[in-house]
Amino acid sequence: MNKSGALQVQTRGKGLYDITGQVARWLAENPIETGLLTVFIQHTSASLTIQENADPDVVFDLNAFFNRLVPEDNRLYRHTAEGADDMPSHIRAALTLTQLSIPVTDGRMALGTWQGIYVFEHRAAPHRRRVVLHLFG
Amino acid sequence: MNKSGALQVQTRGKGLYDITGQVARWLAENPIETGLLTVFIQHTSASLTIQENADPDVVFDLNAFFNRLVPEDNRLYRHTAEGADDMPSHIRAALTLTQLSIPVTDGRMALGTWQGIYVFEHRAAPHRRRVVLHLFG
Amino acid sequence: MNKSGALQVQTRGKGLYDITGQVARWLAENPIETGLLTVFIQHTSASLTIQENADPDVVFDLNAFFNRLVPEDNRLYRHTAEGADDMPSHIRAALTLTQLSIPVTDGRMALGTWQGIYVFEHRAAPHRRRVVLHLFG
Repeated sequence: MNKSGALQVQTRGKGLYDITGQVARWLAENPIETGLLTVFIQHTSASLTIQENADPDVVFDLNAFFNRLVPEDNRLYRHTAEGADDMPSHIRAALTLTQLSIPVTDGRMALGTWQGIYVFEHRAAPHRRRVVLHLFG
Repeated sequence: MNKSGALQVQTRGKGLYDITGQVARWLAENPIETGLLTVFIQHTSASLTIQENADPDVVFDLNAFFNRLVPEDNRLYRHTAEGADDMPSHIRAALTLTQLSIPVTDGRMALGTWQGIYVFEHRAAPHRRRVVLHLFG
Repeated sequence: MNKSGALQVQTRGKGLYDITGQVARWLAENPIETGLLTVFIQHTSASLTIQENADPDVVFDLNAFFNRLVPEDNRLYRHTAEGADDMPSHIRAALTLTQLSIPVTDGRMALGTWQGIYVFEHRAAPHRRRVVLHLFG
């Protein structure tokens, strides 16, 4: 198997959006026993992360930490034409992930018990994000 | 070759643990000339990083930096039930890596001279961490 | 296709260097329809990132953010023998990426419209950086 696909993820502004189920459904349509599944987001103001999916406060706190770490203060930046949240979005994306590769074992993603795959939206406004998938096995 | 495996890594609290030798031994048991070796940690309060392995002060300073960057102060977080070090652990994991893929060339991981692969433990207490390996070649 | 290669990237001190064209040329010499292209940097004081390639102010601001986030202040570090910019370099590398895997679809890297691949130099002095490439397809 050497196959690519894509997901659309509609966000509602800053925060984390669980896409584990969408990715798992795509894998189920392309069944393999062992292999490598790659998730790649085609944006520089949204990113990917793996986080705990048990307590929704975890992703709330994670987003709040990034709000404190990367100030929306245009005096700090040259790139300001797209709004006060735009350059911080690029920084937040650089601090997290654009790509994740997850081993597939026994026909399933080898995620830990509490691991979920998230799109991390860094812009204040809703966006439609494109995530490319690739599977080898 | 399309094979998966796993390592157990026992940590002794916050800090970095060099697993380069363990990964290299697994690769030696599954010899290939050219390919891609993926390392994936199944946790959200420990992570992976590649760092300098020459001077142990580097990983000491790296851990100290993350202690300053992500305060253990429960007033900052909603997710506090698992202890003051838990939410900071998730943030530290999001700022580093859950997965690393390393090209294999001439039968060996194509690491630079000073690069080592580390498990970065973010919890204060010792933990047994599970690392999944996958090899294509 | 299961092939590796390498690029040399000459930097001129701290900042981001666009290598998208170099990577695309190597891929063009090794044409595949569908697959996975991995980029791996063999250093711990330079790293990789995907960033917006439309406005050069973005990478300027990104570098400036990391200058503020990781102070060049030797009183904070034990690892000081290689200069005030060395330990901050390792931290900046840990906060960004050592490796990136990019799906190949329709014979091209599946990058988004504004995505470029950058070597992020963290040392003040110019360096010659080695980037390993690997292609499956």
